[in-house]
Amino acid sequence: MPKVSEAHRAARRTQILDGARRAFAKHGFHETTVAHLEEEIGLSRGAIFSYFPSKLDLFHALAEVDQERLIHLWLGGWENVIRHIVEDDPEWIGAYLDVSRMLRNDPELRRRWEQRNPELNAELERSFAAWVDAGEIRADLPLDTVGRFIGIVFDGLAIQLGAGFGHPIDLEGTLELLRSALAPK
Amino acid sequence: MPKVSEAHRAARRTQILDGARRAFAKHGFHETTVAHLEEEIGLSRGAIFSYFPSKLDLFHALAEVDQERLIHLWLGGWENVIRHIVEDDPEWIGAYLDVSRMLRNDPELRRRWEQRNPELNAELERSFAAWVDAGEIRADLPLDTVGRFIGIVFDGLAIQLGAGFGHPIDLEGTLELLRSALAPK
Repeated sequence: MPKVSEAHRAARRTQILDGARRAFAKHGFHETTVAHLEEEIGLSRGAIFSYFPSKLDLFHALAEVDQERLIHLWLGGWENVIRHIVEDDPEWIGAYLDVSRMLRNDPELRRRWEQRNPELNAELERSFAAWVDAGEIRADLPLDTVGRFIGIVFDGLAIQLGAGFGHPIDLEGTLELLRSALAPK
Repeated sequence: MPKVSEAHRAARRTQILDGARRAFAKHGFHETTVAHLEEEIGLSRGAIFSYFPSKLDLFHALAEVDQERLIHLWLGGWENVIRHIVEDDPEWIGAYLDVSRMLRNDPELRRRWEQRNPELNAELERSFAAWVDAGEIRADLPLDTVGRFIGIVFDGLAIQLGAGFGHPIDLEGTLELLRSALAPK
């Protein structure tokens, strides 16, 4: 068997993830077939599944990459995260929502999902605590409650964008409302 | 053919809707089969589909009833709506989320969906404008932006509850954050 270089493997991995993201965005998670994946990725199922054991593993890897990017944005200020979701591809957001139901019915999967990027998540919590200490964010409510509120607004935007509801989001107005919610009292 | 009284029809309709809600909550919208509906409702498919032409019409009727209840709650104060979603059945919320993706891909369905309860929706907008006029809600941002923010928080809570993420929601803390967001400046 020929040896495959690390660089080649990394490039293949990226090719697979990029194509899979397009396939999931186009068809939704549940309706994406192996044939769809082959078509968007440009590789055979054998090649694809030698990198990722299942469709779900593929999706999980994409979600991990996204979460990493989001946490890096977050470290530059929570507003970046809200800006990002409003500017993201609504089709991809839709595919993302497809998976939330599966998580509910599969505790093992949910555990794995919640434990993506553990070190980055710890850094995120530290940065949030630092903003509270610096008086930039209110300290009169539990840290968890305030941090989670940003997550709730993020997810709510995801639903409205993913479902294609109504007119465009007023991003600046929404940020202003969130700023008022988080401001020190 | 025997004549069926109005009261009998109304009771059957309720029986069908109640059973359908249980079936959708248990299996999710997509995975609910006609056999599941028969089982939960206790009627044959013929009887069920003589009241509602399709599974989607059944779901639509349930969503309409829910929206009606929500708008009535809202008219007593927006906080009621947030309390309601936190206390609702997470399984049913999950089924509700199942449908949001279908809406994206079907503009005709989305139009129908957005036009549920038109008169009640108009009343909701009037009540919101009255709160702004009374100085209970900030007037420095467009009415639409502020009203929609409550919807975003509502949907975000729905996702987190429907996906079964993390620990329970801190309802009082979340309401306090939303109050700060909406308070007149």
